[in-house]
Amino acid sequence: MIAEIITIGDEILIGQIVDTNSAWLAGKLNLAGIEVYQITSVHDDREHILRALADAERRVDLVLITGGLGPTKDDITRNTLCEYFGMKLVFHEPTFAQIRDRFLKRGVDLNRLNQDQALVPDGCTVLRNPEGTAPGMWFERNDTIFISMPGVPFEMKAVTEQEVLPRLVNSGKLKVIIHKTVLTQGVPESMLAMRIEEWENSLPPFIKLAYLPNPMLVRLRLTATGRDTELLREELDRQVERLKILLPVEIYGFDEDTMAGSAGKLLQENHLTIAVAESCTGGHIAHLITLTPGASAWYKGGVVAYDNAVKTSVLGVSEEVIRQYGAVSEQTALAMAAGVRNLMQSDFALATTGIAGPDGGSEEKPVGTVWMAIAGPTKLIAQKFVFGNNRERNIMRSSQTALQWLRRTIMEEFPGHNLM
Amino acid sequence: MIAEIITIGDEILIGQIVDTNSAWLAGKLNLAGIEVYQITSVHDDREHILRALADAERRVDLVLITGGLGPTKDDITRNTLCEYFGMKLVFHEPTFAQIRDRFLKRGVDLNRLNQDQALVPDGCTVLRNPEGTAPGMWFERNDTIFISMPGVPFEMKAVTEQEVLPRLVNSGKLKVIIHKTVLTQGVPESMLAMRIEEWENSLPPFIKLAYLPNPMLVRLRLTATGRDTELLREELDRQVERLKILLPVEIYGFDEDTMAGSAGKLLQENHLTIAVAESCTGGHIAHLITLTPGASAWYKGGVVAYDNAVKTSVLGVSEEVIRQYGAVSEQTALAMAAGVRNLMQSDFALATTGIAGPDGGSEEKPVGTVWMAIAGPTKLIAQKFVFGNNRERNIMRSSQTALQWLRRTIMEEFPGHNLM
Repeated sequence: MIAEIITIGDEILIGQIVDTNSAWLAGKLNLAGIEVYQITSVHDDREHILRALADAERRVDLVLITGGLGPTKDDITRNTLCEYFGMKLVFHEPTFAQIRDRFLKRGVDLNRLNQDQALVPDGCTVLRNPEGTAPGMWFERNDTIFISMPGVPFEMKAVTEQEVLPRLVNSGKLKVIIHKTVLTQGVPESMLAMRIEEWENSLPPFIKLAYLPNPMLVRLRLTATGRDTELLREELDRQVERLKILLPVEIYGFDEDTMAGSAGKLLQENHLTIAVAESCTGGHIAHLITLTPGASAWYKGGVVAYDNAVKTSVLGVSEEVIRQYGAVSEQTALAMAAGVRNLMQSDFALATTGIAGPDGGSEEKPVGTVWMAIAGPTKLIAQKFVFGNNRERNIMRSSQTALQWLRRTIMEEFPGHNLM
Repeated sequence: MIAEIITIGDEILIGQIVDTNSAWLAGKLNLAGIEVYQITSVHDDREHILRALADAERRVDLVLITGGLGPTKDDITRNTLCEYFGMKLVFHEPTFAQIRDRFLKRGVDLNRLNQDQALVPDGCTVLRNPEGTAPGMWFERNDTIFISMPGVPFEMKAVTEQEVLPRLVNSGKLKVIIHKTVLTQGVPESMLAMRIEEWENSLPPFIKLAYLPNPMLVRLRLTATGRDTELLREELDRQVERLKILLPVEIYGFDEDTMAGSAGKLLQENHLTIAVAESCTGGHIAHLITLTPGASAWYKGGVVAYDNAVKTSVLGVSEEVIRQYGAVSEQTALAMAAGVRNLMQSDFALATTGIAGPDGGSEEKPVGTVWMAIAGPTKLIAQKFVFGNNRERNIMRSSQTALQWLRRTIMEEFPGHNLM
């Protein structure tokens, strides 16, 4: 089954809101084995909607429409659907009862606009909306199914999960599609492609590979299509096992895993804790760590030592070191890592000190220069990185790089514990 | 000028990533006076791309294409554009030089895939990509302009801002449109509308007002359209001056200003400094502060006291207080604020302690409960907030709320220094 998603609403086309409905719907449809061929965002405009419906009908056998079903006058989807299918609006008693009950519960009187929401095209199947007043609508013509849903995300999600997906599954027309995304660090896309070329070429034809690159992390998405979920899952797992042998330390997780979460798992499995001392990253590493649910099991805390006085008074970096080598130096980074490890009594500690920009750079130490250090049970090491000249991106990249380096270092120190 | 945005990439159609590029681009185009007629997301597929290009060419006079320009074989946009325009790929020396320099800087060797990125269709204008290896491309046919850009968001943004928008503006086909966004805090949209109703009704017809609401902050976007940039700017400034009188403390900034930056300006103008002690916000407040260029003038640093042992050993919160009232309590928040103020010798200090979730909630203190405290030269105050049950959103909202409260508190303490 091939689908198209049509989202209706001017607010998307002026960039005022990000269309998250489409991504959510596309994800759900894919998991159900329905391929989404196209996503189209159009204006709250009769002609535009009519054209989009006609275009989609030629291309796909399932059209999902979101948006444009609210009570105010700029919502014209329902009338346009009526026109498209040559139907007329009729009063739908169960929908009216549901709207009336919702208003009664809140002690609010119904107005005419609300009552009009119980009008539906006479040839459609009404889909109950458990979270709002505008119902969903299901149309069929020739071999194409059209489903219209409200645009409010939680209403759309409820109608999809409680009405749309069960009906589609029961139709018996669906293929099975499953995905697995392999997350890698430390190898640029082009080099990765060369390293796994043979493996890629040996994939069975029903498994497709896509590279989803990012400056530092490349995601490899495997998609298997067929009839038998179990067999597909087995083959996908088998291929991922082969890939792990080619990328033993580069793979840091799968699907929704994060670098901080992956480092955290390693720490937790080894009953270790970490603390962080940040200057240029200014709390962002701590933030990435504490986004991880359950981080309190392995994260002690951190110090944001922005002012040099804090580096000395709280972290115990000697004034002499800062004077002699500078705040952005190997020596200061090492002393910060050792200092926060001692202060928070953690097993590992990570420290960053650098020049995020836009000011503060020099010829010797340009904006983007970052020293990082790791203090562990048996080692105290530092490394220098040079990023670009954009402050925000320097903070992000320094933080990501620090977590990547941390993960690699723990793996070297505790080699038996590769969690993959 | 009417535009269509085409985003290319399977990852959008399987719902793996949300298409934020389109919203950003649509916003920028709108600000430049270009109406976005439609947004279309299509597969990394030759035929699909060809059809989308032909459809768009019939509808609009500007087609913006993002995605599908990386070095690996699943990126077929460039070849398809060649086919569409009947061009052939030629080697582009300046692009090659730029790619080579990027790799040289990192000390990485070029491989064949990277070299191939310097191939461009022979009839296009190459748009320099300052942030990556794949250049943008500008095509013209009859009266339609086609612009292809990489899909990595920061690369796409750089190419748009540095190459695409200036060229479109220079084309002379655009009207003059200027904007100013006024950022307000603390007044819900409907109340704000009533307070500024008279001002709004007195605006000249060439200035339009839009409310861009957010649960806690309302942005007021003023858009002036005409022929003379200078005159428009003057009138816009005049109207904003009138608005400032109506909202003397509510306006915290303009355009790209942030709450942290606004609080920082207040601190800097009063020669004050701040330190932060975070538990549930886990470094996010520090991160928001240190995103501000020049924050080192007023930000001393902070402690992420995730483990209770860190609250006592580093911040000096007494074990007795934690035992008696709990880590999430008014008393602990106050002690954290006073503790970090003392530790870092700052004028102000902000502290947060709460239950971000998903675990750790109780009937008395459900997930989302957050205590915040401020310690200043003359006061030590605490306040309780209850947010929702989503961990990430609780961290974001707590951080924003804390900074808003901080700004108001400093303004009360130093009333002569309203920076607006």
